Amino acid sequence: MTVRKRAVVLGGGMVGSAIAWDLQRGGELDVTVVDAREAVLTRVAADYGVATRRADLSDASTVGAVVRDFDVVLGALSSALGFATLRAVIEAGRPYVDISFMAEDPLELDGLAKERGVVALVDCGVAPGLSSVMAGFAVTHLDPCERLEIYVGGLPAVRSWPWSYKAPFAPSDVIEEYVRPTRLVEHGAVVVREALSEPELLDFAGVGTLEAFNTDGLRTLARTLSVPFMREKTLRYPGHIELMRVLRHLGLFSAEPIDVDGVRVSPLALTSKLLFPQWGYAEGEEDLTVLRVVAEGRRDGRATRLVWELCDRRDPVTGFRSMSRTTAFPATILAGLVASGRYAEPGVHAPEDVGRVPGHLDHVLAELAARGVAVSYRVE
Amino acid sequence: MTVRKRAVVLGGGMVGSAIAWDLQRGGELDVTVVDAREAVLTRVAADYGVATRRADLSDASTVGAVVRDFDVVLGALSSALGFATLRAVIEAGRPYVDISFMAEDPLELDGLAKERGVVALVDCGVAPGLSSVMAGFAVTHLDPCERLEIYVGGLPAVRSWPWSYKAPFAPSDVIEEYVRPTRLVEHGAVVVREALSEPELLDFAGVGTLEAFNTDGLRTLARTLSVPFMREKTLRYPGHIELMRVLRHLGLFSAEPIDVDGVRVSPLALTSKLLFPQWGYAEGEEDLTVLRVVAEGRRDGRATRLVWELCDRRDPVTGFRSMSRTTAFPATILAGLVASGRYAEPGVHAPEDVGRVPGHLDHVLAELAARGVAVSYRVE
Repeated sequence: MTVRKRAVVLGGGMVGSAIAWDLQRGGELDVTVVDAREAVLTRVAADYGVATRRADLSDASTVGAVVRDFDVVLGALSSALGFATLRAVIEAGRPYVDISFMAEDPLELDGLAKERGVVALVDCGVAPGLSSVMAGFAVTHLDPCERLEIYVGGLPAVRSWPWSYKAPFAPSDVIEEYVRPTRLVEHGAVVVREALSEPELLDFAGVGTLEAFNTDGLRTLARTLSVPFMREKTLRYPGHIELMRVLRHLGLFSAEPIDVDGVRVSPLALTSKLLFPQWGYAEGEEDLTVLRVVAEGRRDGRATRLVWELCDRRDPVTGFRSMSRTTAFPATILAGLVASGRYAEPGVHAPEDVGRVPGHLDHVLAELAARGVAVSYRVE
Repeated sequence: MTVRKRAVVLGGGMVGSAIAWDLQRGGELDVTVVDAREAVLTRVAADYGVATRRADLSDASTVGAVVRDFDVVLGALSSALGFATLRAVIEAGRPYVDISFMAEDPLELDGLAKERGVVALVDCGVAPGLSSVMAGFAVTHLDPCERLEIYVGGLPAVRSWPWSYKAPFAPSDVIEEYVRPTRLVEHGAVVVREALSEPELLDFAGVGTLEAFNTDGLRTLARTLSVPFMREKTLRYPGHIELMRVLRHLGLFSAEPIDVDGVRVSPLALTSKLLFPQWGYAEGEEDLTVLRVVAEGRRDGRATRLVWELCDRRDPVTGFRSMSRTTAFPATILAGLVASGRYAEPGVHAPEDVGRVPGHLDHVLAELAARGVAVSYRVE
């Protein structure tokens, strides 16, 4: 009798739910969801038939104790918990696939992971994540790869005045992206540009014209790849950026408290209070995810461009938002590679390392297609 | 020996200064400026050679005592003081010409003014004011006058991102115009529209394309004229309205306090604090005033359109802002008509009543031209 492997999903939120659903649906792993919220556990147990365990994962020692019982760990916690959780899972010696967007540098734990002989994959969402697998593929298929451009955005399917935007995850993280200086690579060196800078209009089949602006999303790519020009830009419907620039110019994105009628108040806190209800998705409201990755370089001595493109919409059958699907599925597919031993390189790795391995991008894309997420690919 | 008449200017602020300067320059009246601020009085005495008197005009009994010594009174106080001052001047039995934009209905004091046999002209700025004189002319020259449209705006000569606007007077009064429902006349009845509504693009020679939106500026015209279609719209550079609509939609123009991180704060108060410094004119920065009045109807049985247009810029010689000039000069010219007895109808009147008198609009326009404010006029 074969002993089935056991997977644990840390966090049963929007993306964690989709991860649990997809793993359970795959049927190859026994799935347990861990969350501090009883209501979340009741829902995922009822809806997907997964096992559940209640635990407060904001305590790293709890994380270590929980994951010891499992063969592979998937992380879908908030960005604030990302780094401590990564360390705890590595110290527990368990393979890890994580989607959290931690502020810290996960590669700092690479030595620890190698020492424990454990594989940890970080940034395993759509971008970084799927985009990174493509980037890893590109640097092994172009010689040299001279330019890498990643465009990504999560949008409401229907745009409405005035924001033409809704936030499928914490709006404060969105505003953070509109403020934080962006790092890109030019002539092989990291340069810093203002957030919301260098807007450009791009057309996407079936979606229309979108506006792209610099965001600080290269993450590990800026160090793991030696490509002289790299940038990540976020996509929004045209007009949104201008409004965000105006609100930022007005001072509404500043967290520094100011004196108003005798009380101290953070303009950002007030803005968040007013803005976030306007950015909420309505029940059942359709979202979409757009991703374009362009890699330019030479192949067999000829100028070559590789272009991947994804446009995914909310799944009307499961009800999962596109943002949940496109973030969760790269993680579950990469977890499959890890659980099956097909990717077993000890250390902390980002998905570009997986993309360098022959066949792995094809596997990821095939598995995405099997889940209804189609990615087009063309060579120019 | 002829006894020279004495004029008093209540308030030595931006417009009051220009009024005092212009009256003094005219040489026909002895001019005294009254203000509570010593610095203001010192400046107008030094710059224009006018007499000054220090008094706190927020007390109506002080107003009454002050004006008794003068033959004609000009009011240039803040809108909050407008009505009480009007009453005090009427009760003191002195002829009055006022530019303040009071919220109350000045015509309520018409009976009192008739009883005292005193003439009081209110709303004597550019619009209402000059525009109203034109409206009064139009209803006596068209039979019938079927439509009256007034477009007015004060703008920086150079537009800059993002607001394309600066406020030559209290920015809070500007925001009030962006919030207060607007009254217009359609089919002979007063209808109410949302502020910032019905934007339209119009071209102005030498200025370019401006955007007009409904504002609540008809004032007395809605009652004193029987014209079936009347509206006033404010002019801004294109794009400004959209930003104001967005800020309003976000809730930033709401004075109602909300809870932010445990303190109660009015979004409008925070907005004002952040916005108003960005709306301030720099020292010496040029502004301009645009006014277009269109009256349509029949003359001698034929469809006729009368169009007045003014585009005035900051006077580089005196340094007076265009907004000060175009507000002050109609008041000083009307005060001249009152002081000389050429307009002496007892009661509270708006300038449309002056415009009905043959020759008076021509006089106003000639006097404006003599002050370098050119108004074009065409009949179509």
